[in-house]
Amino acid sequence: MHRETGYKPPRSWRTWLIGRPLPTADAPHQTIGKFIGLAVFASDALSSTAYATQEMLVVLAVLGTMAYDFVFPLSLAIVVLLAIVTLSYEQTIHAYPNGGGSYIVSRENLGIWPARIAGAALLTDYILTVAVSVSSGVAQIISAYPVLFPWRVWLSVGCILFIMLVNLRGIKESGATFAIPTYYFILAMYAMVGVGLFRYLTGALGIVQDPPPLEVLHMGQGLSAFLILRAFASGTAALTGVEAISNGVPAFKEPRSRNAGITLIIMSSILGSLLLGISFLSAYVQAVPSEAETVISQLARTAYGGRGLFYMLTISATTIILILAANTAFADFPRLSAFMARDNLLPRQMTFRGSRLVFSRGIVTLAVLASALIVIFNASVTRLIPLYAIGVFFSFTLSQAGMARRWWKVGHLRPGEEVRERSSVLRYDPAWRIKMAINGFGAFCTGVVMIIFAVTKFVDGAWVVVLVIPGMVAMFTAIETHYRHVAQRLSLEHYGAPPRIARHRVILPISGVHRGTLAALRYARTLSDDITAVHVSIDPEEAEKVRRKWEVWGDGVRLVVLESPYRLYIEPLLEYIDEVHRQRQPNEVITVVVPEFVSHHWWSGLLHARAAVTLRAALLFHKDLVITSVPYQID
Amino acid sequence: MHRETGYKPPRSWRTWLIGRPLPTADAPHQTIGKFIGLAVFASDALSSTAYATQEMLVVLAVLGTMAYDFVFPLSLAIVVLLAIVTLSYEQTIHAYPNGGGSYIVSRENLGIWPARIAGAALLTDYILTVAVSVSSGVAQIISAYPVLFPWRVWLSVGCILFIMLVNLRGIKESGATFAIPTYYFILAMYAMVGVGLFRYLTGALGIVQDPPPLEVLHMGQGLSAFLILRAFASGTAALTGVEAISNGVPAFKEPRSRNAGITLIIMSSILGSLLLGISFLSAYVQAVPSEAETVISQLARTAYGGRGLFYMLTISATTIILILAANTAFADFPRLSAFMARDNLLPRQMTFRGSRLVFSRGIVTLAVLASALIVIFNASVTRLIPLYAIGVFFSFTLSQAGMARRWWKVGHLRPGEEVRERSSVLRYDPAWRIKMAINGFGAFCTGVVMIIFAVTKFVDGAWVVVLVIPGMVAMFTAIETHYRHVAQRLSLEHYGAPPRIARHRVILPISGVHRGTLAALRYARTLSDDITAVHVSIDPEEAEKVRRKWEVWGDGVRLVVLESPYRLYIEPLLEYIDEVHRQRQPNEVITVVVPEFVSHHWWSGLLHARAAVTLRAALLFHKDLVITSVPYQID
Repeated sequence: MHRETGYKPPRSWRTWLIGRPLPTADAPHQTIGKFIGLAVFASDALSSTAYATQEMLVVLAVLGTMAYDFVFPLSLAIVVLLAIVTLSYEQTIHAYPNGGGSYIVSRENLGIWPARIAGAALLTDYILTVAVSVSSGVAQIISAYPVLFPWRVWLSVGCILFIMLVNLRGIKESGATFAIPTYYFILAMYAMVGVGLFRYLTGALGIVQDPPPLEVLHMGQGLSAFLILRAFASGTAALTGVEAISNGVPAFKEPRSRNAGITLIIMSSILGSLLLGISFLSAYVQAVPSEAETVISQLARTAYGGRGLFYMLTISATTIILILAANTAFADFPRLSAFMARDNLLPRQMTFRGSRLVFSRGIVTLAVLASALIVIFNASVTRLIPLYAIGVFFSFTLSQAGMARRWWKVGHLRPGEEVRERSSVLRYDPAWRIKMAINGFGAFCTGVVMIIFAVTKFVDGAWVVVLVIPGMVAMFTAIETHYRHVAQRLSLEHYGAPPRIARHRVILPISGVHRGTLAALRYARTLSDDITAVHVSIDPEEAEKVRRKWEVWGDGVRLVVLESPYRLYIEPLLEYIDEVHRQRQPNEVITVVVPEFVSHHWWSGLLHARAAVTLRAALLFHKDLVITSVPYQID
Repeated sequence: MHRETGYKPPRSWRTWLIGRPLPTADAPHQTIGKFIGLAVFASDALSSTAYATQEMLVVLAVLGTMAYDFVFPLSLAIVVLLAIVTLSYEQTIHAYPNGGGSYIVSRENLGIWPARIAGAALLTDYILTVAVSVSSGVAQIISAYPVLFPWRVWLSVGCILFIMLVNLRGIKESGATFAIPTYYFILAMYAMVGVGLFRYLTGALGIVQDPPPLEVLHMGQGLSAFLILRAFASGTAALTGVEAISNGVPAFKEPRSRNAGITLIIMSSILGSLLLGISFLSAYVQAVPSEAETVISQLARTAYGGRGLFYMLTISATTIILILAANTAFADFPRLSAFMARDNLLPRQMTFRGSRLVFSRGIVTLAVLASALIVIFNASVTRLIPLYAIGVFFSFTLSQAGMARRWWKVGHLRPGEEVRERSSVLRYDPAWRIKMAINGFGAFCTGVVMIIFAVTKFVDGAWVVVLVIPGMVAMFTAIETHYRHVAQRLSLEHYGAPPRIARHRVILPISGVHRGTLAALRYARTLSDDITAVHVSIDPEEAEKVRRKWEVWGDGVRLVVLESPYRLYIEPLLEYIDEVHRQRQPNEVITVVVPEFVSHHWWSGLLHARAAVTLRAALLFHKDLVITSVPYQID
């Protein structure tokens, strides 16, 4: 018999909050095009243009004005790295049309342990992205309105909850909601860079007026290869978020690989050009890295010649994009956890699509974890930042190494041969050598950056990540082992069905003789004729009363009175049940029928002993023993 | 069949903490004599000698040295009131040999509402006694070791937990443990008063050297009747705790009324004589009421001529008795709540005697509530004190009014006539008029003191008590109504037993076909032949797999597949069960058999959906519907 349930979820406060539920058949309509896709997946990556140049200048500050000679060349190098990473992910997107973040690529090409490590690194990183980006956006708001300082934690948590709610409404809706601010930011940045370059070309661009005081972090160091390398590593913060699209391919409209690939290339082009423009102009106007005023702010007021309307628009766009960077993590974290849950590395519930066809449990989990992080670290960006970025570069490295390995496999196929892997199809490609070289070089570069990060930021807090990732891998492994164990124990392979149950005994614990007891007795009658009522006696007078009443109402069923000299109720009963259970024959089953009266008052549970719950917990591991509570409604 | 369980509670950490369990038959041995009884029940009352004189001086301070003329006469008046109250309670003890605090006396003589109010006032007061006395004891320790100040809350909570544990060991043990410090305090006080009087008589007693600065609370007031009345009311703090013995009569050895009565008289004599001695000497040495140094401390160093060993012994005794005053509340609160629970005014669980034959749930409840109060009020005596004492005098008033009413009833009996009430036997007494007059006058005096307290301390926090007592009375009434309602609905009077169940249908929800499912099916077979397996399908492929497997393993049982377009699991199942339930015939019962696999890992519950729990909660109020989960052990 097969039938569709007429059940349609009723309107409720949830409908009001996240919209009416969508049937599964609507899934293909819940995909996004390139325009919305860019808004959803690019906000994380693009937000980094707001701080990447400044990060480089902070390290280079010790060189004095010489610093400005290095910023643009370093940015060029970062853009080259960006191009390599983009190329790699573009290939990944076409190779893994169902989503191919580092986790999938590592799983298919490097084995289960690298895949688990990549998954742990990415999940950690998404949580940190949300915590860091929202905290830094709120920090910007607070530097404008210092009166809000005491509420910064709740302001941050509020932002996260808002982004969570919009994401629970579905990817299409969150994309549409957040597209306007994202494009507003892109426009504002291009306008600033454009005006700056125009004034530079016309010779009208000066240097920063009244720059903030210079803060030199690492005094006494001169120019060295290590310094340049550290500045480069700091600048590569610009690359965080580039991997986002590769995970989210299934969110795109068909042809999804093509759409996702084009979106990736557009995103990287915007990111690269903005980074180059901002770095070039920042060096020219001699912006000073400072906690008091950001480089972007100095650049904007120099380009626009003061703190006018356009300056304000630029600064507000920066603040909004910092908070919205969290949205990219909300698009990817739930999807990745669903991938991993399908592989039994996370609770299966994560694969469940909510009423709006998004992985709602992943969205809520991300919001809860990121909020917890913000509360623990008191919304302090300085304390959160060192935890960040290692995970990104770890997963970059694994992903590119995986792709390199894939090209190697592809190169060793015969032309025309086709190998189907779980998420990808391998075909011979004559250009495999050059592709492998690109990915291998990318893996090398991102690996070096990761090591620089880990070494230079270890004491600042990066050790937390170094502890957390193995911890998460251990958790994945435990979950996987558990599911495998369960599946094995439940499997019907080589399973001979057990013989039918021949005998059914019923034990009926009674604390008194009343309508609830009789309802349970009436039910017990339908199970078996072999019923024993058991009364645990704490007070002999009470026991005598029960015995006399049972004679009248007990329908001839045997009553056992257990005297309990230590005034215990559950323990003597358990001992009796245990004894009966030990003496049972093969193919005999024992049911304990517990009378339970239920009332509509929520607090009535506090006024009565709840024997059924305790018994069920205590006897859970007895084979062929079932606890049934028979409810008797008294309202 | 009748049998004693061989079950003896095993040794565990509880044995180590509170001693081996005692069988019910040991109860008569768990009673105490006069010597221990005085220690248990007197510590609260006697501790008030440590501050009663000071309380009077604080009010009288505005009169300057004239204050000292009033202290002794006022103390004499308080001792007269004490005598009246003592006389009243002595009579109560003989009239109510099973314990006759204000609650019982009010219930028997004034009706249920005064009884509930008395119960609420007493319970509140016991909780406050613990919170106030422990806080003030800890405050004394802190004034000696200010370094402990930041830990005062945890120090106080620690003291409460210690007293709780000793009380859980049984009344005999707690009495023995706390007898030494109590008698040490009595000795120390008599020694101080004795030495002081001796030096007074020999003319060697001077006035206080270097007294602390005087703090006048109510400037600008002159001598007035109201001032004297307020000083009197403040001094009556000495009476708190006098009612303790009347509640605890059953804790005494037989003849218990006699033993309890003698203990009460000894206690009042000690209390009265110490109060008179301390007041007389304090006035003579011109002790100054001050937050910086207590009157007792000034008196002790004047009597002993300096801060020597004897001074230290006196001060330490005072500190200890303040903390131990809580012990009296621990003896009475659990007993009173058991009385009230027997009358269905509190959860029945309060009548349960723990492994050491004390009302352990009452003891734990008191410790938890008092600790909560200390945490909320930050262990501040000043903020807790105003809540205190109203309850005591309220219950004094009710108790004496009840006794007066009792004498009136006694006076209207014929000589030789005997009327049995629930807790007492009434016999004609020719002296009823004078006894009624004594109790009536006592009720009037304590009533006046209560009103003075309520008026003068209302804004300081007494309004809390004025709100809490009606709230508690409302709670008692709600609980009583609930129990009465349940008893009525469960009663077998005028109850025709329902006909036997004729038809039994089984619904078996399955999410997959595995050994757990088959175990549930095997069990369902013993219940009925009318079984329907139900699979809620979220994914059509999965449903097809289940269908095919069921054909092999389903033993011919019908399978219904419910398609769930909104990816919901519980709701379509509930709808289906509801439909079957609506169509059931009379005398038909439906059992939902839920397969459930269980694992020894505590966290495995997080990794699997728990359908049985949700279904049970959702279907609790369906008549003739039982939910059974059949556990399948996978470890």
